[in-house]
Amino acid sequence: MMAKVLICYFSRSGNTKKMAHLIKKGVESTGAETSVKDVNRVDPKELLSYDGIILGSPTYYGLMSAEVKKLLDRSVKYHGKLDGKVGGAFSSSHNIGGGNETTVLAILEALLIHGMVICGDSEGDHYGPVSIRKPDKRVEKMCIRYGQRVGNLTERLHG
Amino acid sequence: MMAKVLICYFSRSGNTKKMAHLIKKGVESTGAETSVKDVNRVDPKELLSYDGIILGSPTYYGLMSAEVKKLLDRSVKYHGKLDGKVGGAFSSSHNIGGGNETTVLAILEALLIHGMVICGDSEGDHYGPVSIRKPDKRVEKMCIRYGQRVGNLTERLHG
Amino acid sequence: MMAKVLICYFSRSGNTKKMAHLIKKGVESTGAETSVKDVNRVDPKELLSYDGIILGSPTYYGLMSAEVKKLLDRSVKYHGKLDGKVGGAFSSSHNIGGGNETTVLAILEALLIHGMVICGDSEGDHYGPVSIRKPDKRVEKMCIRYGQRVGNLTERLHG
Amino acid sequence: MMAKVLICYFSRSGNTKKMAHLIKKGVESTGAETSVKDVNRVDPKELLSYDGIILGSPTYYGLMSAEVKKLLDRSVKYHGKLDGKVGGAFSSSHNIGGGNETTVLAILEALLIHGMVICGDSEGDHYGPVSIRKPDKRVEKMCIRYGQRVGNLTERLHG
Repeated sequence: MMAKVLICYFSRSGNTKKMAHLIKKGVESTGAETSVKDVNRVDPKELLSYDGIILGSPTYYGLMSAEVKKLLDRSVKYHGKLDGKVGGAFSSSHNIGGGNETTVLAILEALLIHGMVICGDSEGDHYGPVSIRKPDKRVEKMCIRYGQRVGNLTERLHG
Repeated sequence: MMAKVLICYFSRSGNTKKMAHLIKKGVESTGAETSVKDVNRVDPKELLSYDGIILGSPTYYGLMSAEVKKLLDRSVKYHGKLDGKVGGAFSSSHNIGGGNETTVLAILEALLIHGMVICGDSEGDHYGPVSIRKPDKRVEKMCIRYGQRVGNLTERLHG
Repeated sequence: MMAKVLICYFSRSGNTKKMAHLIKKGVESTGAETSVKDVNRVDPKELLSYDGIILGSPTYYGLMSAEVKKLLDRSVKYHGKLDGKVGGAFSSSHNIGGGNETTVLAILEALLIHGMVICGDSEGDHYGPVSIRKPDKRVEKMCIRYGQRVGNLTERLHG
Repeated sequence: MMAKVLICYFSRSGNTKKMAHLIKKGVESTGAETSVKDVNRVDPKELLSYDGIILGSPTYYGLMSAEVKKLLDRSVKYHGKLDGKVGGAFSSSHNIGGGNETTVLAILEALLIHGMVICGDSEGDHYGPVSIRKPDKRVEKMCIRYGQRVGNLTERLHG
């Protein structure tokens, strides 16, 4: 049985969306079944059908956008049901020191409260991929790498 | 000229709202003009007319609720115009270790990105008042004390 | 082959040490080989021989004590070698809102930078066990539960 | 009476030290008396004689170095005596997404626990200046600007 991974993003400029699709490449390379969805089209109930959930958001005031937060707030209805699933996070922001690390960490903290399992990376973007504006070659590499790592962990725990 | 302070909250259970009104008592005791408003009734433009802004939210997944985040996201339209104003934060949550500190800090971080001035407290709730469920005597004291401190700082910088 | 878990703490009052031994009970119940050590007696090189590492610290100014940080700083010599191991954190503090959540999260962030895998908990102390002063019955339960969860994850990934 | 500001840093590569001296330029331009000191030469008692304290550290595992933390831990002896002073933070790190934001925020959180007043910036490095490796022209500008802002706030509250 293949593990199932959801990559769920909010994107206005298209940068976070582009990161989502790069991460998808990485997850798919591990053999996991992978979906990419706009956060506004995800019902919290859907989260239950995945083994891994990776959330991405632009950095607005050092945090995920209200739209991404809304999905998390609504997910309280299924609190406890995501326990043990694998989680991940990514973000794009406007400038260095502009809050992308805190955004990724805030998403990860929310996933920990759901009881999820997350992994860091000793190389590159430690908490999850971050992009300063448009994803460049460095970001592309980071996103694919992150997708592979989260995909592998999901396969090991749920595949 | 009196400084003007806004206390803006989101509340479902009524606990955060109660904290807002306790903080108001403290701010008023410093002579500042004080308003308490539900976040859903605040247009971001209104923020410009205050010298101090204190935001309160219940703790949902270790962070402010989507409704409070939405006000911050919409405030980007006036980015730069809040620079130098005084800020503050408070939160109520369900249990100890349940994310109230991270909620208060996340709000403060957003206010720092707006260029605002914030103050800690060497006694009690260091970052801003937190309540575990219904505000009790301890929380009441903390809220009034916090209102006084933020009110005093606003008076000194803008009164 | 049994997984090996290290619980490493700094303690002045004895509260964090007590938590370490409670967590040990939980880890042992999963069958993992478990050691409890004072951080001042741990050489960073030793970390390499464990599959899971749980760090505990009192909350000093919202963060781990300098002694615990020193071990992390010295561990840079082996950066990359801890990647994929399982991590965990716990803290004892003086009061509610006194920084215990931020301490636990700061330790977890450091472990993520090492590329480690961590797990939250959808019930109780979401990021890792926290004690307000002396561990009571609630904390005892939380510590044992956390030890079991981290122990189980370590067994699944490395046992 | 002139306000007195201390810029206190730890530096191994020299990058954080260089930032300290750039920030000094900015603080001095506000007329405040300014000292720059290596954290290893600062006794916590000295902190009492300043109106503003700016702490800088390289980013080691997403946090200040143990040496800087040690000064904070030892400052507990004077807890309450720093209440109302102005605080600030800065950091240099190895790469983007490498923990510099969390380092600056962790220092600021410690200063808030001391009851200090801190200010963000609506432009550039919002929480405090960060450098990726060697300070370049951008960082130079940010450091001077930050020194001016913290210096001005200190002058207004304590000058």
